[in-house]
Amino acid sequence: MEPNKVLYQFVLRLADHNMIMAQRMAEWCSRGPILEEDLALTNISLDLLGQAELFYDYAVELSGVNQCADDLAFLRSERAYLNCLLVEQPNGDYANTMVKLLLFSCFEKHLYTSLLNSTDQRIADLAAKGIKEVRYHYRHSSDWVVRLSLGTEESKQRIKNAMIELWRFVDDMFDMNEIDRDLISSGISVDLNTCYTAWKSDMEQIFNECKIEIPHVDNIVKGGIHGIHTEHLGHILCEMQFLQRAHPGAKW
Amino acid sequence: MEPNKVLYQFVLRLADHNMIMAQRMAEWCSRGPILEEDLALTNISLDLLGQAELFYDYAVELSGVNQCADDLAFLRSERAYLNCLLVEQPNGDYANTMVKLLLFSCFEKHLYTSLLNSTDQRIADLAAKGIKEVRYHYRHSSDWVVRLSLGTEESKQRIKNAMIELWRFVDDMFDMNEIDRDLISSGISVDLNTCYTAWKSDMEQIFNECKIEIPHVDNIVKGGIHGIHTEHLGHILCEMQFLQRAHPGAKW
Repeated sequence: MEPNKVLYQFVLRLADHNMIMAQRMAEWCSRGPILEEDLALTNISLDLLGQAELFYDYAVELSGVNQCADDLAFLRSERAYLNCLLVEQPNGDYANTMVKLLLFSCFEKHLYTSLLNSTDQRIADLAAKGIKEVRYHYRHSSDWVVRLSLGTEESKQRIKNAMIELWRFVDDMFDMNEIDRDLISSGISVDLNTCYTAWKSDMEQIFNECKIEIPHVDNIVKGGIHGIHTEHLGHILCEMQFLQRAHPGAKW
Repeated sequence: MEPNKVLYQFVLRLADHNMIMAQRMAEWCSRGPILEEDLALTNISLDLLGQAELFYDYAVELSGVNQCADDLAFLRSERAYLNCLLVEQPNGDYANTMVKLLLFSCFEKHLYTSLLNSTDQRIADLAAKGIKEVRYHYRHSSDWVVRLSLGTEESKQRIKNAMIELWRFVDDMFDMNEIDRDLISSGISVDLNTCYTAWKSDMEQIFNECKIEIPHVDNIVKGGIHGIHTEHLGHILCEMQFLQRAHPGAKW
């Protein structure tokens, strides 16, 4: 693959992570458990959407094709989406959403921190912009996960259920392929195994505070970076892309 | 409006009733409470889909435009859909679905019976084909509604809840506009008020068997024949039309 195509795929992956997570978080809009949380989740969704757009803009430039960020978001099919499987999972209850945000924001926190030193200046700049936001996402979700874990029997059980439900998508989030190998050697990207070590250390600390054990799961699912998704992504895209599909090129 | 345009709108309305009801019934596929019911509902859905297709075929001929039944089903927007509001309502629980099917199949039973004498031979033929199927839909749903009403306290309450929920869409189902007035005068269609009287008599008999009173509702909603829908239709079309929108002209 040409260097630009490799970088394009990598940037698209970062955009897709944020786009799909933003779409899921947006589902909470007007449905939050309390007004304050409703606003917080909607703001987090907007942060992620903003990051997605900036990564899509860069991907458009790298593609060399006459298209825009909207085309990448709204006209690619499920198999062309490269997001990790975790972000496409249904929101479930509030505990489940907070655990998902915790796992994902901690991942982005370490990924962006590493990418601050990318030899690709644009990537380094986008990481610097994103890191401020995802640090807040991490703080918000970890606060809730700890609070719910130390709350009632029911809230603790819900956090435990969410951990068991979502832990099987962790490996997929740190999955790498030939694109990563190319970009690591040129100093553009980083070894996700290193990010995983830092991520794991954060998780152990959180689990410790929560007085919960890290779940052992044996039904690990992977495939996001190859465009192999769970059944949920198709439904997300169906809803997300309907307007652009029904009214191609619509602007407002 | 030209006579063909008037008839086109009327035929489209009949097609849309069946199409959207078929789509809702199909949601039960693989989710029925028992295998026998799962198969029954899927078959009912297929009956309605078959009727929808035949009415769309006729609408295509009347339109004089180079298009096919699929174009009418999959490329019209929400505002162009003329189905009654009842059929687009969510399935709810099994009692709710059975009450919906009861109200709708009884409506189609009387509508098709009247249309057997239509001066438009094609309409009369389609009504003659449809009537055999909707008689079965009516028997199936009325059996269940009576059985659940005379069952446990909970099953009875669920039927009552469904009646209260759905009764407000009854008037919409029998709504008429200038299209009906034109077609009644030419003997092609029938006065839906006459159908309503027959429908009401059937309902009174069923309610009597169920030992339930006909609900009094004051939040009546109308608009289907003018293309003014509840929030649910857009979501149905979003899912139903995604494939054709994403892959225009796809055939298999």
